[in-house]
Amino acid sequence: MTAALDLLVSALGDLVDTDAASLDDARADQSGHAAPGRPIAVIHAETVEHVQTVMRIATETRTPVVVRGAGTGLAGAANGGEGEIVLSTRRMTAIREIRADDLLAVVEPGILNAELNDVLAAHGLWWAPDPASRAISTVGGNIATGAGGLLCAKYGVVRDAVLGVDLVLADGRLLHLGHRSVKGVTGLDLTSLVIGSEGTLGVVVGATLKLRRLVEGTTCTIAATFPDVRAAAAASAAVTASGIQPAIMELMDSASLAAVAALLQLPAPTPGSAQLTIQTDGPASVAEATTIATILAAHHGVPQVSHDREEGERLLAIRRAMHPAMSALGTTLIEDVSVPRSAMPAMFDEIARIEKAYSMTIPTVAHAGDGNLHPNFIFEGSEPPAQVWAAADELFRAAIALGGTLTGEHGIGTLKSRWLADELGDDQWELQRQITRVFDPLGILNPGKVFAVDA
Amino acid sequence: MTAALDLLVSALGDLVDTDAASLDDARADQSGHAAPGRPIAVIHAETVEHVQTVMRIATETRTPVVVRGAGTGLAGAANGGEGEIVLSTRRMTAIREIRADDLLAVVEPGILNAELNDVLAAHGLWWAPDPASRAISTVGGNIATGAGGLLCAKYGVVRDAVLGVDLVLADGRLLHLGHRSVKGVTGLDLTSLVIGSEGTLGVVVGATLKLRRLVEGTTCTIAATFPDVRAAAAASAAVTASGIQPAIMELMDSASLAAVAALLQLPAPTPGSAQLTIQTDGPASVAEATTIATILAAHHGVPQVSHDREEGERLLAIRRAMHPAMSALGTTLIEDVSVPRSAMPAMFDEIARIEKAYSMTIPTVAHAGDGNLHPNFIFEGSEPPAQVWAAADELFRAAIALGGTLTGEHGIGTLKSRWLADELGDDQWELQRQITRVFDPLGILNPGKVFAVDA
Ligand SMILES: Cc1cc2nc3c(=O)[nH]c(=O)nc-3n(C[C@H](O)[C@H](O)[C@H](O)COP(=O)(O)OP(=O)(O)OC[C@H]3O[C@@H](n4cnc5c(N)ncnc54)[C@H](O)[C@@H]3O)c2cc1C
Ligand SMILES: Cc1cc2nc3c(=O)[nH]c(=O)nc-3n(C[C@H](O)[C@H](O)[C@H](O)COP(=O)(O)OP(=O)(O)OC[C@H]3O[C@@H](n4cnc5c(N)ncnc54)[C@H](O)[C@@H]3O)c2cc1C
Repeated sequence: MTAALDLLVSALGDLVDTDAASLDDARADQSGHAAPGRPIAVIHAETVEHVQTVMRIATETRTPVVVRGAGTGLAGAANGGEGEIVLSTRRMTAIREIRADDLLAVVEPGILNAELNDVLAAHGLWWAPDPASRAISTVGGNIATGAGGLLCAKYGVVRDAVLGVDLVLADGRLLHLGHRSVKGVTGLDLTSLVIGSEGTLGVVVGATLKLRRLVEGTTCTIAATFPDVRAAAAASAAVTASGIQPAIMELMDSASLAAVAALLQLPAPTPGSAQLTIQTDGPASVAEATTIATILAAHHGVPQVSHDREEGERLLAIRRAMHPAMSALGTTLIEDVSVPRSAMPAMFDEIARIEKAYSMTIPTVAHAGDGNLHPNFIFEGSEPPAQVWAAADELFRAAIALGGTLTGEHGIGTLKSRWLADELGDDQWELQRQITRVFDPLGILNPGKVFAVDA
Repeated sequence: MTAALDLLVSALGDLVDTDAASLDDARADQSGHAAPGRPIAVIHAETVEHVQTVMRIATETRTPVVVRGAGTGLAGAANGGEGEIVLSTRRMTAIREIRADDLLAVVEPGILNAELNDVLAAHGLWWAPDPASRAISTVGGNIATGAGGLLCAKYGVVRDAVLGVDLVLADGRLLHLGHRSVKGVTGLDLTSLVIGSEGTLGVVVGATLKLRRLVEGTTCTIAATFPDVRAAAAASAAVTASGIQPAIMELMDSASLAAVAALLQLPAPTPGSAQLTIQTDGPASVAEATTIATILAAHHGVPQVSHDREEGERLLAIRRAMHPAMSALGTTLIEDVSVPRSAMPAMFDEIARIEKAYSMTIPTVAHAGDGNLHPNFIFEGSEPPAQVWAAADELFRAAIALGGTLTGEHGIGTLKSRWLADELGDDQWELQRQITRVFDPLGILNPGKVFAVDA
C-alpha cells in the first residue's frame, strides 16, 4: 500500500491527493452509501498518460483502483475504500473535436454533460442523453453507467449515442474501441460492452459521441392530473399505444407531488392524485399535443396544454424538484426498476402492495415513456435499515417477474450487487464475471462492485 | 468425426441430413466463397432442445460447429467444411409473441426478415432492419451479422432493434440475455456483444425484437443525376449537413448505372454520370423532398421528385437491381467499407485511384446516408485472384485511414479475417479472441472465422 503511494507520488507528484477531506469525499457518491475505510489517495489525472501510469503502478503493486467521475452515481459504484486508489478523470475536460457534418464530437471523459451541451448548442448540436444530473455528472460517468434521462424515450440513452471509446486497461495499455463511421460490424462490439460497465473493464479516457441536431419548432407541454396513480399509468400507456412519441413523459405519484408541493410551498395536491407531465417537440408537436390531451382526458385525466417553452419549463420544474424534495424528507434510497411499458400499472400495484406490507410510503416517479420507475425509500441515518432492503428486495423481484430489470439507468454498483445473479442467473453471472477478467486478469478494477462475490 | 455423427443420428434421427447436395450447399454462402471439404452433416434443428443436443454432442466429441441461417451472408461466415457440423436454425420459424403496446416481438431465429415483417404489418408494426436480402435472410442471421440496410440511416440497424437474445452456449447451456423493458443496465450488455458476433459466441435460438409503428403519410422519392460520383457524394453530404434525415439515400456510380441499364435494357446513362435516389417519409416528407431537391440542384444535380409510392418504387428498382447486374458481369466480391459521412467524397477518390492503379473497374453503390459503400470487384472463376485482394487491401486501408471500418454491415467471416487485426490492433484482437473463449472455451464455434489465427 505504501509502496503504491510512493510510486504514485514519485511518478505523478501533485496530482496525488491525500488530503483527509478529499479521501473522505471519495468514499461516497450521491447514493449516500460510503465505502468502509479511507482510500490511499485520489489521483487527479489530467492526461491519458497519467491514467496509464496509475494503472501500471496499480498492476505492479496489485492495488485496487476505483475510477471516479463527478461522484453523482446512485449505486455506490464510484466509492473508494480502505487500500484502494481512487482515479479521478474529472480534470480531463477537453473537447478535442466537434464535427457538425459528421454529427460527432470527440471528448475527454471528465467534461460535465451540461458543459458539453452548452458548447454543442452554439453549433446547433446536442448529445441527447440527459440525466437529471446533467449539470453535475461527467460524460465518462454517463458512459460508464449507461445513463438515461427524461428525453431518452424519444432520443435514446447513452448506449445509442456513442460511436467509440478509448479505454485504458488494468495493466495500462490503451485500446481504441469503435470507429468514427456511424456503421461498423468489425469484430465484437466492445464499445457497447464498456457502456454501463461501471468501471469494471477499464478507464474511459476518450469518447467519440454521436450527436443530433437541435430540434426546431414549438415545444408543447401537457400537464394532467389523475385521480390515482394507476389511472395516470394507464393513460401514459395509452399515449404510447397511440403511436405518438413524446419527447418527455414523466409520471409522479401522490406522495411525490405532496413532497414537492411542501418543498416549493405550492398548494397541497388533492390526496391520492397523480400527475403526468408530457412534452412534444419537432414538426408535428402541436398536433401531437392536442391528440395527447384528448387521450389523457379519455383516461380520467384533467390536462392543461401550453405552447410556451417557459411555461413548459415551469410545469416541469415540479418534476425536477423531486430529488431535493426527497432529500428534505430524510436519507433516500432511489430505486430504478424498469418494466415493459404495458406493465407499468401492474408495477404500481406491486409498489402499493409493498407499501402496505411494510407500512411505508414509497414516493415514486417514472420515466413513463420507457417504463422506468424510481421508487424512493426514505429513512433516518446513513445506511438503509433491513426493513428497507426487504421491501426493495420485493420490488426487484416484482420487476423481474414482469419481464423487467433491477436497474434501468443507475447501475448495480455496491448497492444492488446481491441481486445481480437473481436477474442474470448463475450461469450468465459467472460468464459476465469471466469477461471482466479478460480485461482485468488481476481483478483490480472496482473490486467488490457489480460482481461482488461475497454480497 | 464418425463418433459425432453416430451420436447425432441416434439423438436426432431425421433431422441429421447427410445428403451430398445438402452438404455441398452448406459449404458456401452468397459470397461465392466455399469452405474446403464437406461438412459431416447439416442438422435441421426445430427446437431449442435440438440445438442444445447438437452443442452437447459437439462439446463431448470436440467437433466444430458452424451455425447457419439462410446462407445469404457475404463474408463466408456460415460456410461448413471438412469435419464440421453445420447447425441450421432455418426451421425455427415461430413468432412466439407480438405486443403492439410494448412494441416488441419474440421470435425464433429462422424466420425470414420479410416473412416476419409481413405478419407485423397486419398489426401496423415493423422491425426496421431491412437488408436488401430481407426476403431471403433470417432474423437470426441478421442478428448474428448485425445487418443494416437501406432504411438504416433513419431507422437504425439491428444493433438498435434487439432487446434480448436467447443464446445456447458451446456446451449446450441456454442463457437469456437482455430483458423485455426498453431500458436496462443490469450487468454487462451481452445482447450487444452477440449482435454481429457471426456465430462465434453461441447459437441464437430466440430474440426479443424492438419494433416500430409503420410510418404514416406520403413517401416522396427524389432521383437525381450528377456529372460525376464526387459531385453526387458531395451532394449527399450536403443533404446530411442540412439536418434533414431521409429514410433512404442511395448513391450509384457510373459503372453501376451502366451495368443495371444493361441488365434492365434501359437506355445507357451518360458516361461518367452518377445518381442519388432519396426517399423521405413521415409528417414532413413533402417539405423535406422539396428542400432536398433544391440542395441537389445547387450541387450540380438534376433532380426529379415523385410523391407517388409506386413511381418511387420504380425509381428505386434501379438500385435494387444492382446485385443481379453485378452477377451478370462475372463473379462478384462485394465489399462493404464504411466511413464518416464527410469522408465519402475522399473515399470515392481512393476508389478511383485504386481503379487506375490496378486497371480495373470497381462499380460502387453506397448507403450514402450513413457512409457505407459497397465497391464490387468482378472476376472470372470462383476465388478472387491475388490482384483483386491486393486492390481490396488498399481499399480497406484507405477506409480505416479515413476513420472508418472494414465492414459496415456484412461482417468479417472468412473473407476479411486477415485484415481484422489491422483495424483492431493486436491488443484488441487478442482481447476479443479471449472473450470468445469465455463463451466457447474449446473453440468449437465457427473456428477459422473472424478470429482465424493462421489467416
Ligand atoms: C440529482 C441526481 C439525479 C440523477 N438523475 C439521473 C438520471 O436521470 N439518469 C441517470 O442515468 N442517472 C441519474 N443520476 C445518477 C448519476 O448522475 C449518473 O449515474 C451519472 O452517469 C454518473 O456520472 P458521474 O460522473 O457522477 O460518475 P460517478 O458517480 O463518479 O461514477 C459512476 C460509475 O462510473 C464509473 N466511471 C466514472 N468515470 C469513469 C471513467 N472515466 N472510466 C470508467 N469508469 C468511470 C465509476 O467507476 C462508477 O462505476 C442522478 C444523480 C443525481 C444525484
Ligand atoms: C442480394 C443480397 C443483398 C444483401 N444485402 C444486405 C444488406 O443490405 N445489408 C446487410 O447487412 N447484409 C446484406 N446481405 C448479406 C446477408 O443477407 C446478411 O448478412 C444476412 O444478415 C445473413 O442472414 P442469413 O440468415 O442468410 O445468415 P447466414 O448467411 O446463414 O449466416 C451469417 C452469419 O450469421 C451466423 N448465424 C446465422 N444464424 C445464426 C444463429 N441462429 N445463431 C448464431 N449465429 C447465426 C452464421 O454463423 C454466420 O456467421 C445481402 C446478401 C445478398 C445475397
